[in-house]
Amino acid sequence: MSVITTESLVAALPEGIVITNPATIQNYRYDWSRDPDAGTPLAVVRPTDATQIQAVVRWCAANRVPITPRGAGTSLSGGSSAVDGGIVLSMERMRAIEIDTATRVAVVEPGALNAEVKASAAQHGLWYPPDPSSYEICSIGGNIATNAGGLCCVKYGVTTDYVLGLDVVLADGELITLGGKRLKDVAGLSLLKLFVGSEGTLGIISRAILRLVPTQPAKATLVAMFPNLEDAGRAVVALGRVARPAMVELMDKASINIVEDAYRMGLDRAAGALLLIQSDAPGPAAAAEIAMVETACSENGASECFSTDDPAEGEMFVQARRSFFVALESRGTLLLEDVGAPLPQLPALLGGVAAIAAKHRLEIPVVAHAGDGNTHPSIVVDPTDPDAPARAALAFTEIMELAISLGGTITGEHGVGRLKKSMLPAQLGPRVTELNRQVKQLFDPDNILNPGAIL
Amino acid sequence: MSVITTESLVAALPEGIVITNPATIQNYRYDWSRDPDAGTPLAVVRPTDATQIQAVVRWCAANRVPITPRGAGTSLSGGSSAVDGGIVLSMERMRAIEIDTATRVAVVEPGALNAEVKASAAQHGLWYPPDPSSYEICSIGGNIATNAGGLCCVKYGVTTDYVLGLDVVLADGELITLGGKRLKDVAGLSLLKLFVGSEGTLGIISRAILRLVPTQPAKATLVAMFPNLEDAGRAVVALGRVARPAMVELMDKASINIVEDAYRMGLDRAAGALLLIQSDAPGPAAAAEIAMVETACSENGASECFSTDDPAEGEMFVQARRSFFVALESRGTLLLEDVGAPLPQLPALLGGVAAIAAKHRLEIPVVAHAGDGNTHPSIVVDPTDPDAPARAALAFTEIMELAISLGGTITGEHGVGRLKKSMLPAQLGPRVTELNRQVKQLFDPDNILNPGAIL
Repeated sequence: MSVITTESLVAALPEGIVITNPATIQNYRYDWSRDPDAGTPLAVVRPTDATQIQAVVRWCAANRVPITPRGAGTSLSGGSSAVDGGIVLSMERMRAIEIDTATRVAVVEPGALNAEVKASAAQHGLWYPPDPSSYEICSIGGNIATNAGGLCCVKYGVTTDYVLGLDVVLADGELITLGGKRLKDVAGLSLLKLFVGSEGTLGIISRAILRLVPTQPAKATLVAMFPNLEDAGRAVVALGRVARPAMVELMDKASINIVEDAYRMGLDRAAGALLLIQSDAPGPAAAAEIAMVETACSENGASECFSTDDPAEGEMFVQARRSFFVALESRGTLLLEDVGAPLPQLPALLGGVAAIAAKHRLEIPVVAHAGDGNTHPSIVVDPTDPDAPARAALAFTEIMELAISLGGTITGEHGVGRLKKSMLPAQLGPRVTELNRQVKQLFDPDNILNPGAIL
Repeated sequence: MSVITTESLVAALPEGIVITNPATIQNYRYDWSRDPDAGTPLAVVRPTDATQIQAVVRWCAANRVPITPRGAGTSLSGGSSAVDGGIVLSMERMRAIEIDTATRVAVVEPGALNAEVKASAAQHGLWYPPDPSSYEICSIGGNIATNAGGLCCVKYGVTTDYVLGLDVVLADGELITLGGKRLKDVAGLSLLKLFVGSEGTLGIISRAILRLVPTQPAKATLVAMFPNLEDAGRAVVALGRVARPAMVELMDKASINIVEDAYRMGLDRAAGALLLIQSDAPGPAAAAEIAMVETACSENGASECFSTDDPAEGEMFVQARRSFFVALESRGTLLLEDVGAPLPQLPALLGGVAAIAAKHRLEIPVVAHAGDGNTHPSIVVDPTDPDAPARAALAFTEIMELAISLGGTITGEHGVGRLKKSMLPAQLGPRVTELNRQVKQLFDPDNILNPGAIL
């Protein structure tokens, strides 16, 4: 076996594109999951256009070198952990955003941040809805690779619902175009949707066409406190039958107390659960929708409701919710879960997480995109407890097993990456797992595209 | 080569499931496209559950017999044209619909009609949005197979946006489950979305889980007349930047006159285009949104606007629009197109269709889901003109070529089926076409599932 050197790669690309400096390479080994198994790549490549991506992929294909595509490195599942001896393909320089106002689409390069896409659209009175909690720092390419969700998905859907077109560099370096500036298109198999959520394992996204909609109207907000998770869960089911809120977030007792510790908002520390709900129905319809939601909450055991149609006041609560992870980080390192369940199973999922926390003597506060049944139990790993990482790892697996047992999913929006792949067959079953493998094999026969992710 | 007989198939299934009576078989040869190349199947099988579908597929796999899945037979692209010596697998007896109100999903068998799903959901205050013009008579399985669209898609998206789960019988007879009662799920490659729109070529859908939303609010309606298509096209672009109407339909001059001939609604026969727009914003917001849309129409050349917030009055116009095809059928047989283009290209597409009509001395009135850029030029084939079918066939191809040249699609919602497959490679390009073939080969190596459709 010959040793691969990067000289021919450096030579194949303009100066400055390929980085082999060991100190810089260190910065590209990990994503936010801090996967301890992350490897050390041969080089980091920062292309500026699709042609350079093709050159990298061709070089990697010829040399059987693994490629880890990387957006902003905010993966929480190890989706962009580097591989020993591989190439990290960082999209940080490919950030162009073009807003086509007539077609109402954004044509974006993968390294553009979600927030940059939103801001560019907003300059033209348009809106790109998907809003992961990390939207200010995550890349749109990563969003597409994971089919990312967010807070407004309960009304507006997830990333795949906004992807109209993709340019993709295949494993042999050929560039293909799927879809286009067309709102409806059923010509041929939906390879477009197959690439969304494929976590860089089938091809490298070099450009995307995203659907935009008119600016979101001003929002009215409701904060409802509940004595327990069961009542909050019933309220989520009930309100979803009469209203289409643009946000239905839940915090459990532990999360309420963590936010209250940090921000002193006057939240009831004794409450078992909090729902944070927003309506963006146009004009006075927002307050009317919030009133309907408030009725549904009251009828299902809410102990206290506070509503406002002042968008700034509502935004304060949303900021507190978004800041939860920041507040939590002071307590230790975090192992972030992303499990989902059918809506009626939400209380069972949250109750089960609490039982797993007690069993393993761990702090596992939960926030949830409750309207979607998508929860984020956050396993706090106490740095002063040497045994905590092992117990946290057990809890991480048991929470996924619980979700599967409830008819749920091991990942609602973060992706399988490397941290969850061992549980994927348990969710999918043997034949669907095998179909995943076969599709991967078809698109990437030499397994050079993000090897080790998903499968 | 041995002659296949159906005796062992008949024996493998309960009495009455397999029909070999030649007279009955005749009724299952054609779908609504009346494809002249439709074959004569060996048998029609009407299973009542997934186990029977598996038995049929296993028998067909063992004997290399082609299977044509069939919902209600309303395909307009030959997607369910029978194949000589094959089996038509009709889902007409698999029509169960179960509404899970807590999860807000419908669990449906593929033979259920779209209208039946809507009606079942409505009994629980819920709504299944996708609404093909044929919703009263088309099956939900066919809708999923073609990723069907409709009139409200401009706001509410297409079928794939509502499919949360599928049970699929694979080409070897194994039954798999994809997705589930989960609103967000990114575990593994999105095979779920790959099956949607695959026109029965990758597997047979035996059950689907569909997302439901609360009942649609009452609608306000605007009818705007324009002197020409260009102004109407500009109005469509302009109104989509300020409003999210639940319907944006267009009729050209010929269509206006056809509807006026049939229904005497007092429409301006001299107008070049009509836009029919509805808002379902809640409460008074609907009339406010329609007022914004009316302003956008007036500013872009509308010669006359009529608006109403009386839902019954609005529905009368929608009915007239829906009845267009019925009115048109009195003029001859129809070759229905389904081409799309980026929104700003809509006037060019419609102008080009008019030029093709003139060139080939054909009547080709157009209605369009204009808000999606999806148009239905209807080529009228005069039965008294022996040369008309040949000219119509030329026009059919030229309209698809025109759509491709404008960055559009040969099919927005009807599917490729058998009538459009010769043009598919021109739209997709060689490599994407090859990927389509390879995926098909992976899922159906012996090419027994709806052979001849798409590819």
